[in-house]
Amino acid sequence: MKLPNCINRIHKRLLTMSTPTPPPLKKPSVQQPQWIKPHDKSNQKPTLKIYNSLTRSKNDFITIKPGHITWYCCGPTVYDHSHMGHARNYVSTDICRRILQDYFGYNINFIQNVTDIDDKIIIAARQQYLFEQKIINQYHEINQSLINQSKQFLKVYINKNLPQFNHDNIETDFINWSQSIPNLSDLSKEIPKFPMYLKAATVAHQAIYNSSSSSSSLTIETYLSNIQDVAKPYLDKEFGSTVNDPSIFRKLPSFWENKFNQDMDKLNVLPPSITTRVSEYIPDIIAFVDKIISNGFAYKTQDGSVYFDTIKFENDSNHDYAKLQPWNKGDLSLINDGEGSLTTGESKKSPADFALWKASKPGEPSWSSQWGEGRPGWHIECSVMASDITGEVMDIHSGGIDLCFPHHDNELAQSEAYFDNKQWVNYFMHNGHLHIQGQKMSKSLKNFITIEEALQDYTSRQLRLVFALSSWDKPLDFKDSLISEVKSVESTISKFFTTVRALNNDYKHTVVEGGYISKKVGPQEKQLYDDLAFTQTEVDIAFNDNLASGQALRSIQDLIGKSNGYIQQASSGAFELRIEVLLQVTNWIVKILNILGFETRRDKLGWLDDSDNQAGDSEGSAEDIALPYVKALSKFRDIVRNAAISKSDPNEILKACDEIRSDLVNLGVSLDDRPNGVALVKFLNAQEKEDLIQQQDAKLKAAEEKEAKKREQAVANAKKEQEKLEKMKVNPLDMFKDVTLYTEWDETGLPTKDINGEEVTKSMKKKLTKQQQQQEKLYQEYLKLTSA
Amino acid sequence: MKLPNCINRIHKRLLTMSTPTPPPLKKPSVQQPQWIKPHDKSNQKPTLKIYNSLTRSKNDFITIKPGHITWYCCGPTVYDHSHMGHARNYVSTDICRRILQDYFGYNINFIQNVTDIDDKIIIAARQQYLFEQKIINQYHEINQSLINQSKQFLKVYINKNLPQFNHDNIETDFINWSQSIPNLSDLSKEIPKFPMYLKAATVAHQAIYNSSSSSSSLTIETYLSNIQDVAKPYLDKEFGSTVNDPSIFRKLPSFWENKFNQDMDKLNVLPPSITTRVSEYIPDIIAFVDKIISNGFAYKTQDGSVYFDTIKFENDSNHDYAKLQPWNKGDLSLINDGEGSLTTGESKKSPADFALWKASKPGEPSWSSQWGEGRPGWHIECSVMASDITGEVMDIHSGGIDLCFPHHDNELAQSEAYFDNKQWVNYFMHNGHLHIQGQKMSKSLKNFITIEEALQDYTSRQLRLVFALSSWDKPLDFKDSLISEVKSVESTISKFFTTVRALNNDYKHTVVEGGYISKKVGPQEKQLYDDLAFTQTEVDIAFNDNLASGQALRSIQDLIGKSNGYIQQASSGAFELRIEVLLQVTNWIVKILNILGFETRRDKLGWLDDSDNQAGDSEGSAEDIALPYVKALSKFRDIVRNAAISKSDPNEILKACDEIRSDLVNLGVSLDDRPNGVALVKFLNAQEKEDLIQQQDAKLKAAEEKEAKKREQAVANAKKEQEKLEKMKVNPLDMFKDVTLYTEWDETGLPTKDINGEEVTKSMKKKLTKQQQQQEKLYQEYLKLTSA
Repeated sequence: MKLPNCINRIHKRLLTMSTPTPPPLKKPSVQQPQWIKPHDKSNQKPTLKIYNSLTRSKNDFITIKPGHITWYCCGPTVYDHSHMGHARNYVSTDICRRILQDYFGYNINFIQNVTDIDDKIIIAARQQYLFEQKIINQYHEINQSLINQSKQFLKVYINKNLPQFNHDNIETDFINWSQSIPNLSDLSKEIPKFPMYLKAATVAHQAIYNSSSSSSSLTIETYLSNIQDVAKPYLDKEFGSTVNDPSIFRKLPSFWENKFNQDMDKLNVLPPSITTRVSEYIPDIIAFVDKIISNGFAYKTQDGSVYFDTIKFENDSNHDYAKLQPWNKGDLSLINDGEGSLTTGESKKSPADFALWKASKPGEPSWSSQWGEGRPGWHIECSVMASDITGEVMDIHSGGIDLCFPHHDNELAQSEAYFDNKQWVNYFMHNGHLHIQGQKMSKSLKNFITIEEALQDYTSRQLRLVFALSSWDKPLDFKDSLISEVKSVESTISKFFTTVRALNNDYKHTVVEGGYISKKVGPQEKQLYDDLAFTQTEVDIAFNDNLASGQALRSIQDLIGKSNGYIQQASSGAFELRIEVLLQVTNWIVKILNILGFETRRDKLGWLDDSDNQAGDSEGSAEDIALPYVKALSKFRDIVRNAAISKSDPNEILKACDEIRSDLVNLGVSLDDRPNGVALVKFLNAQEKEDLIQQQDAKLKAAEEKEAKKREQAVANAKKEQEKLEKMKVNPLDMFKDVTLYTEWDETGLPTKDINGEEVTKSMKKKLTKQQQQQEKLYQEYLKLTSA
Repeated sequence: MKLPNCINRIHKRLLTMSTPTPPPLKKPSVQQPQWIKPHDKSNQKPTLKIYNSLTRSKNDFITIKPGHITWYCCGPTVYDHSHMGHARNYVSTDICRRILQDYFGYNINFIQNVTDIDDKIIIAARQQYLFEQKIINQYHEINQSLINQSKQFLKVYINKNLPQFNHDNIETDFINWSQSIPNLSDLSKEIPKFPMYLKAATVAHQAIYNSSSSSSSLTIETYLSNIQDVAKPYLDKEFGSTVNDPSIFRKLPSFWENKFNQDMDKLNVLPPSITTRVSEYIPDIIAFVDKIISNGFAYKTQDGSVYFDTIKFENDSNHDYAKLQPWNKGDLSLINDGEGSLTTGESKKSPADFALWKASKPGEPSWSSQWGEGRPGWHIECSVMASDITGEVMDIHSGGIDLCFPHHDNELAQSEAYFDNKQWVNYFMHNGHLHIQGQKMSKSLKNFITIEEALQDYTSRQLRLVFALSSWDKPLDFKDSLISEVKSVESTISKFFTTVRALNNDYKHTVVEGGYISKKVGPQEKQLYDDLAFTQTEVDIAFNDNLASGQALRSIQDLIGKSNGYIQQASSGAFELRIEVLLQVTNWIVKILNILGFETRRDKLGWLDDSDNQAGDSEGSAEDIALPYVKALSKFRDIVRNAAISKSDPNEILKACDEIRSDLVNLGVSLDDRPNGVALVKFLNAQEKEDLIQQQDAKLKAAEEKEAKKREQAVANAKKEQEKLEKMKVNPLDMFKDVTLYTEWDETGLPTKDINGEEVTKSMKKKLTKQQQQQEKLYQEYLKLTSA
């Protein structure tokens, strides 16, 4: 509607007449009454305490810079698959990190290294390379030369690792020896890797023995895989020193670093803020070592190595050596294990001293330094990388409990020697050991589980639940009873979410229908709100008490129990259910689960189930969601296209059109055909989908029944036709030749006397004549049919 | 591979030989050295202060129960569309709530009411009902009776609201009057609703006038819509008292409550923990009022109403009246506005007293009470509902600034009279006024914007940015310059996210290709990590300072600027870009945006763009993502089905197959046809998609060129054919009749003498004879062709 011009003008004036924004109200002439400041009870709130390996107790957590945390976490040495021990350490650490970041609100700079220079890596890379060069590339079938080679590998292996056995007669020896198993326990104590050696030798021996037999079906691949464990040490001893191409020592760790990152991603572990690689820190390491020498706490040896002077450091009044596990000082087994198998440490002053810089022998990667060609020691790597980012003191250093001594104690000594300070790390967090079914995980005990393998048996969520239910700093036994508990907890939580979502949909549905549902909270709801507040306080206490995620999850389970009780009572009709309180409970639980690193739904009504990638749910990647539809489309197109190419019956194509329609119903979409030839696309909800599937089934059944009826009818028709045909066949001359009825007939076949010998009546004769005439017609028809 | 039995047995023994879990290390004989407790600088961290209307200053925020907040927010009075004023209040409050909950970690019980009993609702419901009953249902065309009725409505309306005008001659009057506009400003001051009245009268007058003219094309619907504003008050005055069906007074607010919830949902406002409705609290209200009477602070009047005794309350030494705006005490305009237009308050003791319980007249909903039939006053509703959940003291009460006096001051008085306590609310948070283009929003000024309308011009994210960039407690002018600023901020943030995602994809791509990219952080990265930490501290200071989301966003913009600088420097080749630091910055920004209520991506690399619903991105509802594919599928099926029904050319179907293939490329999917008849489905990334589209275009162009060539060739062929035909036409007898060559011919048409009169040579004759024989053949062919 158009207003007259003058009126438009008035409105314009009204609009530009700008009622100016009033100045903020200030009426100092009238004073507000005194406000009562609330009583501060914040001292009743728990304060965060964290278990600190440096004190072996829970300490108040105080950061260097309020609100910020610097954290260095010992990362992986990358030369093989990551296993459940890694999963335990990195997921537990991830949970701690997330609680500190997302519950306590700290801004965390989380640094994690990749150890890509290490004796284990050098050996693995060298052995892999030599096995490929000398064996895989040389032998393409199992020939006598290969078998002879293998026998040589095995002989040397057994002589070195299993001197108990005569390798020439290993099988007989085994049989004899297995009688004396009682000694096995002693043996394993004496030689910890005994079972592993035994297995490797047995496997190789079997392969060699089998391949010699004529009936062997062993492939070359299996053969090589079975002998590799005995072959590699031999080859390495023989040719190791010839391997000097640096790229060989980079290829292997870079491959496993990528694998490790993929595993962590699958476990939903947050990536580090900063990743450091040893190989990128060589100049920094050299400078760091140099300063430790200047500070008087390290010395160079004849062979061009540099060692840390533990005695000098320990005797210095400013320093303490082995702060974490002083009782392990001088434990040579631990110390030498830390030094690495390629390091002899012959010329060091004290057996407790450890390498900062190792002179490299041929077959070991090396970098130039003022002490000659060499490479860094293990412990120095972490000191240098961490210090580069965090400086002379950090809030948290973490790692597995097995790294305490000597690795972390040596790190502390090095860094405190470098900075000449007292405390390089304020809080040292160590993840407890992982056991599998009560035992240490070991490659030889068949209980060695890689992360990849674990993810075939358990979901990433289940593994996280295992770790979240346990204390991060306590040993954890990955045993059947724990897994059962985890599955039960998971199911309780999932079921609760499913129920709440169903109730919420029901509620929304009712409101959309025009309902006006009472929202007033009664005593039951108030109780549940109180239960929620109680649990929130409990969870706060749990998180403050050493980040106790397990305790928090148990409190949440209690709350779910109470909520389920509320739902049950309401559905029993005791009172009307209120959705708001359940949503409040659910949203908060989802928030906490999200903090613990479980992936949750955008609608805050549950965690992400694997099945949530299905259409109809709002989660999952676009590709995952679109894929089933695109596949259906592509399949349909294939059928149509092939039919068109072969120029087949249009009915085939119509059939394909019907089939895609049915397929889409199963994907939650209905296509309603309309007279205009353009189908209406409908996304169905679960109920509608269910209904339509039932309808389709019913239609199919009805069609089948109709088909069956049709078949029956056809049979009946055929029978009738047959009967008719039988009747037609009868010659009219013979049709009354029934001796049970008549006794005499005339020449046209009409009866003249009945069974009693009496004349057939005139009226009867007339009737019979008519019948005969009818039959005559049928008979003529029959003759015509048969002659055709 | 199967081991011999004895070996299996050995392995079993090894497995069951259970290395028992070692007891936790406890070596009390060797003590750990002294740990140095970090210096606690937490007093350097800012403490949270909130602007409190009760002190008109920022107060330290101290909750009743540490870690928990009880919060009552004044909800909507539901009788019309929600407008930008509502959006401002509820989104600003939502931002505050989210910061307290998700940044500071408070557990909040957030209660919000729905005012569904109120004089405005009563009038709107009654008028709507009467207009439907008396007009809409009675008149289905614009007849004289309706026009007469309408004239009556307008006359009464103008007489009452615009006495300046003679309604019989309103148009002439307008024209005259518009000359004197200078007085309009005074007029508007005198009658604040003047422009609204003016507009309503004009619109109605226009309709009535137009419909009388013969050329009117006014529909009955438009007519009725235009007269409703003048008709409704008339009808209500005439028949209002006859409207007594309670369902009429429930239907309207329930409709608008649903609408309000939908608007809030679109604005991503968190739903309340608890919603209370006045209509569900009548018995509680009666009991509450009764106790105030018992406590001596209220009295019943003759007509069956109950009033709060402001003088008694004010004179009580234990209490203060009008704590929020004591300077407004006694402002009758504010007080009467708060009492509602259906309430006269004739028999109250003091003009400042306000109704707790209103006796209902006919045409007003009512409930039984000890004081007679009536309904609650406005202010008491909130006191009762809030107290039911929070008890005698709550942490926060919030609402729009215009509710300070009398509504909130009266709430305080009532509740403190009821509980006989000093302070019912510890912190009163009021959202500042919203202005539109410098002016108060008003229905009459054409600057009244409903939320629905606003969401047509701006996205929900833009509106939230408007409010997040402003202080929640300050007036906000929704003007062009602000909107420009918001769009610029939005674009800066979005562009940064897009860049980081692209860089991250690039990085990931390179790693997948087998790369080993340096991760070592240099001085530029360390600087950016420091910038991040600095911004984190700034944002912490901002949030602690009265939840200053605007300041936080400005700090984030600075950080984005620094990050962009880093990216630019790197891409200029100054150093190699490190993705980790950018991911760290981005993840943190996304976290803060998420806290402010912006929807963010699951991968923490951006906020949710509207376009993110497109395939290829991981966000958006399943239906949104699947829809384009399903539509494509359905369209394809339509074509195929219709072709099959009409039994058309299979080539048509093949063409459709090619077209769907092209369509899918635009949706990011390629179908690669394979010889086996099953296409390979590929989801493309943006680049691949782009490439394929270009390829398709090129192919199309090539096909077009080929087609053009073919056409050219056809033209050439046709020409050749024509020439051939021309040649064929020639009778062999005439073929040498060329006088420029020959002068004599024989009877067969062969030349005998050439142009010089010389005999044609024998050899030439032979040649010509051959030519003639060839032509004879062509000519015979030609005769055959033409005769056919």
